[in-house]
Amino acid sequence: MKNVYILGSTGSIGVNTLNVIRNFPDRFHVSALTVNTNTQLLLEQINEFKPDLVVVKDKDAAEKVKHQMPANCKLLVGVDGLNNAAAGLEYDIFVGAMVGYAGLAPTIEAIKRGKRIALANKETLVVAGEVVNNYCKEYGAEIIPIDSEHSAIYQCLVGENIDEVEKLIITASGGPFLNKDKSFFEDATIDEALNHPNWKMGNKVTIDSATMMNKGLEVIEAHWLFGLSTEKIDVVIHPQSIIHSMVQFRDGSIKAQMGLPDMKLPIQYALTYPERLQNDFERTNIPAIETLNFYEPNFEKFECLKLAFDVLEVGGTAPCVLNAANEIAVEKFLNNEIRFSRIPVLIEKALEKIGNHQLLNLDTIFECDTETRNFVRNIN
Amino acid sequence: MKNVYILGSTGSIGVNTLNVIRNFPDRFHVSALTVNTNTQLLLEQINEFKPDLVVVKDKDAAEKVKHQMPANCKLLVGVDGLNNAAAGLEYDIFVGAMVGYAGLAPTIEAIKRGKRIALANKETLVVAGEVVNNYCKEYGAEIIPIDSEHSAIYQCLVGENIDEVEKLIITASGGPFLNKDKSFFEDATIDEALNHPNWKMGNKVTIDSATMMNKGLEVIEAHWLFGLSTEKIDVVIHPQSIIHSMVQFRDGSIKAQMGLPDMKLPIQYALTYPERLQNDFERTNIPAIETLNFYEPNFEKFECLKLAFDVLEVGGTAPCVLNAANEIAVEKFLNNEIRFSRIPVLIEKALEKIGNHQLLNLDTIFECDTETRNFVRNIN
Repeated sequence: MKNVYILGSTGSIGVNTLNVIRNFPDRFHVSALTVNTNTQLLLEQINEFKPDLVVVKDKDAAEKVKHQMPANCKLLVGVDGLNNAAAGLEYDIFVGAMVGYAGLAPTIEAIKRGKRIALANKETLVVAGEVVNNYCKEYGAEIIPIDSEHSAIYQCLVGENIDEVEKLIITASGGPFLNKDKSFFEDATIDEALNHPNWKMGNKVTIDSATMMNKGLEVIEAHWLFGLSTEKIDVVIHPQSIIHSMVQFRDGSIKAQMGLPDMKLPIQYALTYPERLQNDFERTNIPAIETLNFYEPNFEKFECLKLAFDVLEVGGTAPCVLNAANEIAVEKFLNNEIRFSRIPVLIEKALEKIGNHQLLNLDTIFECDTETRNFVRNIN
Repeated sequence: MKNVYILGSTGSIGVNTLNVIRNFPDRFHVSALTVNTNTQLLLEQINEFKPDLVVVKDKDAAEKVKHQMPANCKLLVGVDGLNNAAAGLEYDIFVGAMVGYAGLAPTIEAIKRGKRIALANKETLVVAGEVVNNYCKEYGAEIIPIDSEHSAIYQCLVGENIDEVEKLIITASGGPFLNKDKSFFEDATIDEALNHPNWKMGNKVTIDSATMMNKGLEVIEAHWLFGLSTEKIDVVIHPQSIIHSMVQFRDGSIKAQMGLPDMKLPIQYALTYPERLQNDFERTNIPAIETLNFYEPNFEKFECLKLAFDVLEVGGTAPCVLNAANEIAVEKFLNNEIRFSRIPVLIEKALEKIGNHQLLNLDTIFECDTETRNFVRNIN
C-alpha cells in the first residue's frame, strides 16, 4: 500500500490521479490533498478518499471547509502549509499536479525527502532543472514524468541505454491554431484559444498549447529529465495525439509510445512504475484510427516554441524568465488585457530586459521569477 | 570479437547481414558462409570476408568453387555439410538467413550448441516452435528474431514484463494485392505477385506477402517467440511499413518500433543486442513520411492468413502441413503450374488430407513435412 500526496487535487491532473487511484483501493491510500480555492470539490474528495491532511490556499478557503472536515483530517493553509505538508507528512509518492511556478517549492520539499515524484508540473524542471536534478541525486528522489510526452519517452527508454539515444522526437498536436495563418493571432479570441482539438486541460496549459509554448516548455523539461542537449530534441506536429512521443536510437531504430489522449494512463504509469497494472481504460483501436499525420513545426508562426529552444541554449535563469513572463502574459490574455499575438512579444521583452544569472540556485530563481513577473505585469 | 555463422549468405537476409558486418570489422568475424547454388556471389563473399568454412548445396556447386578457394577455408557439401558445420565450427552467433523448411535442421544443431540464434528463418518456429523452445531451454540458446515485425516486438519488450502484455499488434503492408478484389487473384501473374510495394525480398517470401501467408507465418512465429496465445495476437494492415509492429500492455499503453523498411536494422540489432551500435543507415524522417495508415485485414480475401490462425488453434503438426503445402504451392505458382488463387486451396486440401499429430518431435515433423509435400506435388 503506497501513500500518495497530491499537490493540486482539483485540477485536471489531480482529478485524473484520483480517477486512477479509485481503481486500486488496495494499492494506494491518499494521504494528502492540496487545492487552491475549489473547496466544494475538495470536500467531495475528502469524503471519498479520506486523506490524513488537506491544504487550502488561504483563510477564506479554510473557512469554507473547516466545519465539514472529518475529525481525523488535518487542515493546513497557504504556502507554508504546502511546504510543511510536503516536508512533514508520511507518504511514498508525491504527485506534482499543480500548474505553474508555485509548484516548485513544495516539489523541492518532497525531493528532499527522497520520495518518488510523479511530476506533471512542468515549471519545476523548466525553471530549476539543474537544481532539481542535483537535489534528486543528493536525496535519492526519482522523478517519473506525467506529461504524456515525457511519459512516452520514459516508457520508450525502459531497458534501453540513454547513451545510445540519438534523438528525442516530441510530438505536438499543434493546438487549436495549427491550420490558422499567423495573421489570425491578432484577433484570436479567448474561446478560440481554449478550444483544444484533442486534450481537455486547464486554461493555462490550453493557452500554452495554442501558442505552442507548452511544447517549448516540454522541450526544456525533456532536456533536464533525460539529460540530452537541444540539438538532440526535435518537435514534430502530429495532430491526432496518438503517438505521444518517440525516441530514436543511434542504430536508427525508433520507439514510440501510443495511446488515446487520456492523462489517466501516464498518471497510472508514474504511480505504478515499473509495474503496469491491469485497468479498464478505453483501448486504442489502431485500425479505427486509420490515419496518423506528421509535419514539421512552423517556428516562424509559433514564436513561443522558438523562444523556448533559444532560452535552453542561453541557459541560466533565461528559462525562468521565459516561464514567468509567459505565465503573466497568458494571465493577461485570459483577462482580456492583451491580444493573443502579444504573448511572445511580452516574453521577448522580458528576456531582453531581465539580466541572466548563470549561477542557479533557488534564491536566484526566486528573484528572477519575481523580477520578471513585476516587469511583465507593467507592460502590454 | 564475435564469430558469425551465416546460413544462407547469398539470399536477401544473408547479403544484408554481410552489409551490416562490413561496418564493424572489429566486432564481427565471419566464420562460415553457406549457400545454395549462387557460387559466383559466394566467391566474392569469401574474398571479402575470409570465412574459415563454406558449405554449398551439392557437388556441382562445389566443383565451381573448389579451385578458387583460399587455402585456409574449408569446403563442405550438402545437408550433412550444413549440419556438421553448425555442430562442429567455432562461432558465437548463428544467423538463420535461409528460407524454408530446410533451415530447420542446421538451426537445431546451432541451438544444441547453446549459441545466439539470429533468426530470419520463419519455418524453424512455424513447424517446430515447441520443440525449438524446449531445446533452447535445455541448451541455453537464445533466439533474437530478425524478421522486422518480431524484432520490433522484441525491442518493444526490452525492460518490460511479458506477463503484462495484453496484445501483440503485427503490422502488415498488405503486399502488392492489398487494393485488388479477390476476383483479381484468378488471373494474377507472377510478375504482379512479385512486385512488392515496400520490401525487396526473395521470391518465396514476396509471394507469401501477396497471399499474406507471410503474415500468417509471422503470427505463428510470434506465438512461439513470445509465448502468447492466438487471441492475443492481432494483425493490422499498415501499407507504409514504417511501424514494424506494436505491443499493447495491460495498462492500455502501446509501444511501437519504427524505421524505414530496411532489414539491416533488425539484423544489426540481433547481432549486437542488448547494445545498439552507431551506424550510418538512412534515418527515418518522420515529418517527411506525413501519413501512416491502418486498416483491418480482410480474412475473407486473404484466406492464407485465416488458415494460419486456424492451424495455430489446431496445433500439433497442422502448422507443419500449412507450411509444407504452402512451400510447394508457391513453387507451383512460380513454375506457372497453378493460378495464384489456388495457393490457399491446395493448402486447405493438404490440411484436410494429412492427419494431425499432437505429439511433436523432429521425427513426426519430418514425416509430416514429407507426406504433405508429396501430396501437394500431385494435386493442382
